[in-house]
Amino acid sequence: MKRYLCGVDVGGTKLSAALYETDGTCIDSRIVFHHTDKCCDGIARTIVDIVIELLEAHSLSVKDLVGIGVGIAGHINSEKGVVITSSNFKSGFNNYPLRDKLIAELPTNIIVDNDANAQAWGEYKFGAGRGYSNLIFYTISSGVGAGIIIDGKLVRGMSGTAGEIGHTIVDPYSDIICTCGNRGCVMSLSSGHYFPQFYNRYLKQGYESKIGITSNNLEEFTGRKLEEGLKAGDEISRMVMNDSANTVGLSLFNLFQVINPELFIIGGGIINIGEQYVERVEKRFLSLVQNMMYDRVKLVTSELGASAGLLGAAALILE
Amino acid sequence: MKRYLCGVDVGGTKLSAALYETDGTCIDSRIVFHHTDKCCDGIARTIVDIVIELLEAHSLSVKDLVGIGVGIAGHINSEKGVVITSSNFKSGFNNYPLRDKLIAELPTNIIVDNDANAQAWGEYKFGAGRGYSNLIFYTISSGVGAGIIIDGKLVRGMSGTAGEIGHTIVDPYSDIICTCGNRGCVMSLSSGHYFPQFYNRYLKQGYESKIGITSNNLEEFTGRKLEEGLKAGDEISRMVMNDSANTVGLSLFNLFQVINPELFIIGGGIINIGEQYVERVEKRFLSLVQNMMYDRVKLVTSELGASAGLLGAAALILE
Repeated sequence: MKRYLCGVDVGGTKLSAALYETDGTCIDSRIVFHHTDKCCDGIARTIVDIVIELLEAHSLSVKDLVGIGVGIAGHINSEKGVVITSSNFKSGFNNYPLRDKLIAELPTNIIVDNDANAQAWGEYKFGAGRGYSNLIFYTISSGVGAGIIIDGKLVRGMSGTAGEIGHTIVDPYSDIICTCGNRGCVMSLSSGHYFPQFYNRYLKQGYESKIGITSNNLEEFTGRKLEEGLKAGDEISRMVMNDSANTVGLSLFNLFQVINPELFIIGGGIINIGEQYVERVEKRFLSLVQNMMYDRVKLVTSELGASAGLLGAAALILE
Repeated sequence: MKRYLCGVDVGGTKLSAALYETDGTCIDSRIVFHHTDKCCDGIARTIVDIVIELLEAHSLSVKDLVGIGVGIAGHINSEKGVVITSSNFKSGFNNYPLRDKLIAELPTNIIVDNDANAQAWGEYKFGAGRGYSNLIFYTISSGVGAGIIIDGKLVRGMSGTAGEIGHTIVDPYSDIICTCGNRGCVMSLSSGHYFPQFYNRYLKQGYESKIGITSNNLEEFTGRKLEEGLKAGDEISRMVMNDSANTVGLSLFNLFQVINPELFIIGGGIINIGEQYVERVEKRFLSLVQNMMYDRVKLVTSELGASAGLLGAAALILE
């Protein structure tokens, strides 16, 4: 009997699911938005619905799956299948036993892990990380996270929360306070969630927006609007991009000092901006590295793009 | 024939060597100072001399050794036995093939590794790290470094420079520039090498020294003088200690987010100050961790103390 893999990616902006052959070939996928305000059970329900919809569209049932891998933004104890917490969702989760809840509706092998771990694993197995055994996948979207692979194994840590690079602090006297409660962590100085605050900082300094952003519609300054601003030659957009990239470059430098990996893979929504972002990240990284790098660490962008999380989540079933 | 292990610890302040039974029992040890100004060959010569002196004192020869483990402050490619560079020595080393140089004079199995790795391994095998397989040894002396053990294996990285926590940047707008050339890295905000600069900052702010330190004799404010100042109730000494401990606490928090280990072991000369230092480190760590820790990470001080590096270096022979 032919069997399939299912991957689910629960992000801070969208929730997507896909069906794969066991060799990683994508058969079909679905995306929904506006799940972030739902309660825990509501998000679990959304996952169940989208998976069933996918299966039914191909006249399949849960019995046809090897299993379902779920990557979710937040602190995940993969071993227990529990979402410990997540700052990206209104519910916060709070030790929600997502795996058990899903298994009750979708009786198959289910793995729940951090979305960055899933993406790292996807790139390692099928994308930019093929051929490397020591790499860090670094993702910048509405949040910031990393998946660390050392000697071909995901580093999960004691509670499953390793790779939470977004909450490492790189500027403790920053005026921006993160949702985690600390000042100057990487997430608050680089992620899309904070772009409106960065933009406002420059508006207050007297810079003028070329894309109609004012202190009254700051929330419209999303990652997509940043792309638009860069294309339109908006000076503030350029500065916001540079601020974010400079923070990520410094953060990569810190990871380089601690882990000394062979490869960094940059992923997440930010890469839609294009090469100029990664070029800026690399410039900052190299300016800090100076003469402290003895073997060249490679810095590349995600090959799988938006599908890294989905395919990686599915691939975790085969880990 | 009974055989022995030899460990050598080449620090930024002292160079020590010891002879061990294969079960880790120390037979004898030697310490020399003032080696840091010597050229590379001079330091290698010092190591050879001290090892031969130890052997001869017990009527032994190199043939009686299983091998010699050398821990040295700096960037080390352990696989090649090369000291890539070190900011703690005048010579800087610069790709010095220390292992080959030593083998030419001491023909036995020799391993050269970073001193923090050796210390981590020593604590893991014989000290505070026994029973843990995921731990970080964090050392603060004239320099700052870490040895990372994941799943019972030292994380060395691509070039052997993993664990260089001292050069991770945690305050990019700091007024203190590290010997590495960057601003606000952990080493420049916490290590003994910078205590005179910290002290001077407070003198300039108008604080008065109770231990006779002025802008003219700042270099006398060593770690030992800090201990004296703390005992004498010197306000500046207390602030210097807090600054250092606050930086280390923040740095542990960052490592916690990235690696999520079970255990942190604090070592190096700083622990001579006593419990008040580690208490301050822990206070800072917990203030940043807030509600982001789901399993309690243990924070302890080195059990092996000054001998961690020596015993760890010797134990690397049995790795």
